[in-house]
Amino acid sequence: MRLGEQMHDFAAKIFPICRSLTGNGVRETLAEIHAHLPPLNIHEVPSGTRAFDWTVPDEWNISAARLTGPDGQLVADLRQHNLHVVGYSEPIDCVLKLEQLQEHLFSLPDLPDAIPYVTSYYRRYWGFCLPDRVRESLPRGDYRVKIDSVLAPGNLTYGEVILPGESEREVLLSTYVCHPSMANNELSGPAVTTWLVKWLMEKKRRFTYRVVFIPETLGSIVYLSRNLEIMRRNTVAGFNISCVGDNRCFSYLPSRNGNTLSDRVALHVLKRIGQAYKHYSYLDRGSDERQYCAPGVDLPICSIMRSKYGCYPEYHTSADDLTLVTPDGLEGAYMAIRRCLEILEVNRIWRAPVLCEPQLGKRGLYPTTSTRDSADSTRTMMNLLAYADGKQDLLSIAETIDADPLECASIALILAEHGLLADVVEYSNLPKLAL
Amino acid sequence: MRLGEQMHDFAAKIFPICRSLTGNGVRETLAEIHAHLPPLNIHEVPSGTRAFDWTVPDEWNISAARLTGPDGQLVADLRQHNLHVVGYSEPIDCVLKLEQLQEHLFSLPDLPDAIPYVTSYYRRYWGFCLPDRVRESLPRGDYRVKIDSVLAPGNLTYGEVILPGESEREVLLSTYVCHPSMANNELSGPAVTTWLVKWLMEKKRRFTYRVVFIPETLGSIVYLSRNLEIMRRNTVAGFNISCVGDNRCFSYLPSRNGNTLSDRVALHVLKRIGQAYKHYSYLDRGSDERQYCAPGVDLPICSIMRSKYGCYPEYHTSADDLTLVTPDGLEGAYMAIRRCLEILEVNRIWRAPVLCEPQLGKRGLYPTTSTRDSADSTRTMMNLLAYADGKQDLLSIAETIDADPLECASIALILAEHGLLADVVEYSNLPKLAL
Amino acid sequence: MRLGEQMHDFAAKIFPICRSLTGNGVRETLAEIHAHLPPLNIHEVPSGTRAFDWTVPDEWNISAARLTGPDGQLVADLRQHNLHVVGYSEPIDCVLKLEQLQEHLFSLPDLPDAIPYVTSYYRRYWGFCLPDRVRESLPRGDYRVKIDSVLAPGNLTYGEVILPGESEREVLLSTYVCHPSMANNELSGPAVTTWLVKWLMEKKRRFTYRVVFIPETLGSIVYLSRNLEIMRRNTVAGFNISCVGDNRCFSYLPSRNGNTLSDRVALHVLKRIGQAYKHYSYLDRGSDERQYCAPGVDLPICSIMRSKYGCYPEYHTSADDLTLVTPDGLEGAYMAIRRCLEILEVNRIWRAPVLCEPQLGKRGLYPTTSTRDSADSTRTMMNLLAYADGKQDLLSIAETIDADPLECASIALILAEHGLLADVVEYSNLPKLAL
Repeated sequence: MRLGEQMHDFAAKIFPICRSLTGNGVRETLAEIHAHLPPLNIHEVPSGTRAFDWTVPDEWNISAARLTGPDGQLVADLRQHNLHVVGYSEPIDCVLKLEQLQEHLFSLPDLPDAIPYVTSYYRRYWGFCLPDRVRESLPRGDYRVKIDSVLAPGNLTYGEVILPGESEREVLLSTYVCHPSMANNELSGPAVTTWLVKWLMEKKRRFTYRVVFIPETLGSIVYLSRNLEIMRRNTVAGFNISCVGDNRCFSYLPSRNGNTLSDRVALHVLKRIGQAYKHYSYLDRGSDERQYCAPGVDLPICSIMRSKYGCYPEYHTSADDLTLVTPDGLEGAYMAIRRCLEILEVNRIWRAPVLCEPQLGKRGLYPTTSTRDSADSTRTMMNLLAYADGKQDLLSIAETIDADPLECASIALILAEHGLLADVVEYSNLPKLAL
Repeated sequence: MRLGEQMHDFAAKIFPICRSLTGNGVRETLAEIHAHLPPLNIHEVPSGTRAFDWTVPDEWNISAARLTGPDGQLVADLRQHNLHVVGYSEPIDCVLKLEQLQEHLFSLPDLPDAIPYVTSYYRRYWGFCLPDRVRESLPRGDYRVKIDSVLAPGNLTYGEVILPGESEREVLLSTYVCHPSMANNELSGPAVTTWLVKWLMEKKRRFTYRVVFIPETLGSIVYLSRNLEIMRRNTVAGFNISCVGDNRCFSYLPSRNGNTLSDRVALHVLKRIGQAYKHYSYLDRGSDERQYCAPGVDLPICSIMRSKYGCYPEYHTSADDLTLVTPDGLEGAYMAIRRCLEILEVNRIWRAPVLCEPQLGKRGLYPTTSTRDSADSTRTMMNLLAYADGKQDLLSIAETIDADPLECASIALILAEHGLLADVVEYSNLPKLAL
Repeated sequence: MRLGEQMHDFAAKIFPICRSLTGNGVRETLAEIHAHLPPLNIHEVPSGTRAFDWTVPDEWNISAARLTGPDGQLVADLRQHNLHVVGYSEPIDCVLKLEQLQEHLFSLPDLPDAIPYVTSYYRRYWGFCLPDRVRESLPRGDYRVKIDSVLAPGNLTYGEVILPGESEREVLLSTYVCHPSMANNELSGPAVTTWLVKWLMEKKRRFTYRVVFIPETLGSIVYLSRNLEIMRRNTVAGFNISCVGDNRCFSYLPSRNGNTLSDRVALHVLKRIGQAYKHYSYLDRGSDERQYCAPGVDLPICSIMRSKYGCYPEYHTSADDLTLVTPDGLEGAYMAIRRCLEILEVNRIWRAPVLCEPQLGKRGLYPTTSTRDSADSTRTMMNLLAYADGKQDLLSIAETIDADPLECASIALILAEHGLLADVVEYSNLPKLAL
């Protein structure tokens, strides 16, 4: 089965789970991920725990939620769609007139058939979400409201995979597991991230990979509050993985700095992907880069997406479903991010230890039969030697000499075997590590 | 009465005074300014005083100057217009043939009705200026020349206001008081500067303001020779205020460096003033920025002007009068420079002391009713927090996030009250002061 | 006789000499150059000498080479054209069938009347080059091959001129003497370089000039291996002089760095030469800048050329002859490079030791009669004083103020005599020398 179909099937399997900022929906989702990624560790952070400016709230779990009309007809039921209930709704059991009920109802006049996604994590509240077409047709009368939820001290739950590499230097992949039944934003992120980790697990890794499956915003804040020091010391690059499932054009959202290694790799890949992509500004941010790139945190994190959150009509509604997200959409995003990781893995700073051009002939490094490919390869070899000044990294040289960085890396390794290139340091802009 | 009219009336009042590089005309002008600005101090610098490469010359005063024709008709008379006599003309009383007189006459064939402005500060000389139309009609014959002037040791006179602020760091405003009866260049400068100081006197000031009313060139050289050390240490920004009275489009002349805080603020304001402005080069310089930006002086001084000296037809003639300069012209320039000062006053470097995004909700910093204005304000608040990295100043952030810097400053103060922003240092590119 | 004709005559004189990487052809050529440049020193480097990654090979000399056809007709003869024999051909005397001979023949189907230029320095081999039209008409049968060459330990020979200047800082001129009978690539280089040195010898020199006449590639590698330390310490600029003889448009090939003083001067001159020029990339390199700009060597060397090697149809064939190279072509290139050297010689970093504008009038530095030229000159004088901040060099200031750098230099010297400008250091980016 194609990778895209595998990821789509996985997204379909976890689609019905009722996720939120905290609660058993997150745990069930992480259990499904764990089935694919045995090294996944699950962490529980108790309610009341401080994380920078925030405090982990009570855990929320819900067993049922129903809104019944004057004639006993079912207006909204959690069993029909997780989006019908406002996230973190407090328990309630009462009868209200339609007029009183209205301030607890949410709908979208512009998308009259879609159920909107609404939450109220930090203000005690309850509410129902429903298609505007349904809401407009509600008759006057008494409505029975019943929400069986529990808001009580518990935990915020997240998953973490650390895949060690040759180096302590890390690449961060971050995605979130707090969105209930929506597909692009957000089951595409966990699906693509899970399959990236499966690929990384098979691979000889130069870098250590830190991969987190967290609730958005508070999850990244909590995670950073526990891991900031090591992440600041070791992170060379990383990606926030969200909205990577539909089939429309690619999007790029830079880090705050805008010129980190992650940004350079992402732009390198997107510019060569064979289709136009949307280049957003950090002013358009809206996912966990808000925390990873905050002043004082300053991690080199950017995002490669398909249709960006907030920028497609189905965003944060029930229309963001598994018809919008496709196997091709998932696989295209997976391949783009995987290519970024492949380039990162080979992106060394080389220097030429031999002064002047070396004599390639005596080492048999000139092709014996001359073809167009071998001429290109020889030109790339000569250019690598000419630009390997111990300052520019391989990605920069590849862009300068208009060559493929992975091919450059293969040639560089051959030259290194012949003593014609030497690795300088991993990343000159980071402090040296005692490895 | 509107500010523009007040400034225009003031310019009209001091228009008839016969000013020059030195002498009683400067003193009378400063006395009129002093009537509006009680803190103005008058300084007298004796003839013979050295100032860098220059020496203060003899003081010049003139009581009368008349050129009478063969038939006794009055050809030119100082009482009719101060420009009729060449500035610093030595005393003379003689009769000359028209042919001999010609080398002491100045007129403008291109502007046949205007009297040109001519001076000879450093070479002993005398002369008369007159409309070319008059000069061309002069009959042959004997002309009586009589100039009652005194060139004798005395003083160079200038005025200075120091308005202390919270900080010793200074903003410099400099304008000149040496031009006889001309309006744009130059009574607009003293008028606008006087009214800016009146406004500053009413204001709680962060910066100390150093304001000088000086003769052009030698005045600034003398002033710098006496104050260079403190000015170099403390000046964060400043403006040379000249040609700020007519109603044509704005002009900008950069500092030599071209990218000082003054330049950044001036360009910020001019780009948002709602009309095109002329962007000159430092190669077009011609006023006291020549001294303030000289190598080794290097003060951050630029100019916001209306029609720039040398670039409008009436320049340095009697046609530069109080019909060319208008209340609207003066007020527009005043408002532009005042806005620069307002922005400078709030332009701090903020940093966010709380890691990750803070929880605004628990502090009541989210608007309770949602309007377009409140959404803009919330977005600005989030952007300030996201960009307050302790490196960029407020002006830079405001331009990045496309927000008004004064509104940013108000929001930043609210955030600071809640402990969410902290002031780093005044200006990181200046040495720290023991305040 | 015009310079261009002198250079063309010289090229014609040394055209028939049979040059190669080593051997008596190089020595004869250097002897002709020595006749014009008495300070030329000839260096001999023994076969077997190591130079970085390379070893000097055996010396090659050839007395005769003839290819005779089945009917005794002469197919190719070294006496007719030096290009008929593959450079470094080993000695041979045998008879071959046409089919066996073919793999030792070289011709150009696209240029059927031209003899190609082929060498085999590092692989034992022999071969003949001939017009494709001749090759195609060769009858079947037995061919007599006879090459009287000697490949034996000897020397690599090069010439060097050091012209001392006031400073130990050096300018490098490098050209090559290994090409047999071709004109643009390459007798134009030695001709233009010889005439540049004749001009330099007559001149009071600020810089020391290091001028080398070497075999391409191995010559520069050998030369660098013996002189790298002093060249790295002292070289402020330099040019590789090749392909400077035809009459087509100019070409520029940057240093690897792309922004050295040499590049700045070359671009300054080419942009003002009154005709379009081709701006190549360092990716198009192909001459000794490959060694001079190699990582770790990093000399500031670029190239001003006419038609660049590899980019004109006659390149590396017998069609690159003395009709392609013209007196005008040679003289134009000579003048362009000479102008670069003239600008380098005057390119100092000046600072204004007097604060504020100086009083030029008291020193008689204002023109007494006002003409357009004198106004330009006064403006240049004022601009030099205004920009002489001790950081920018004269070339940078001249470009900023849009003035001729040689005229700026003359004015700067006058200002220096009056104590209004002072020389800072030779080049602030180089270590200071105890001169």
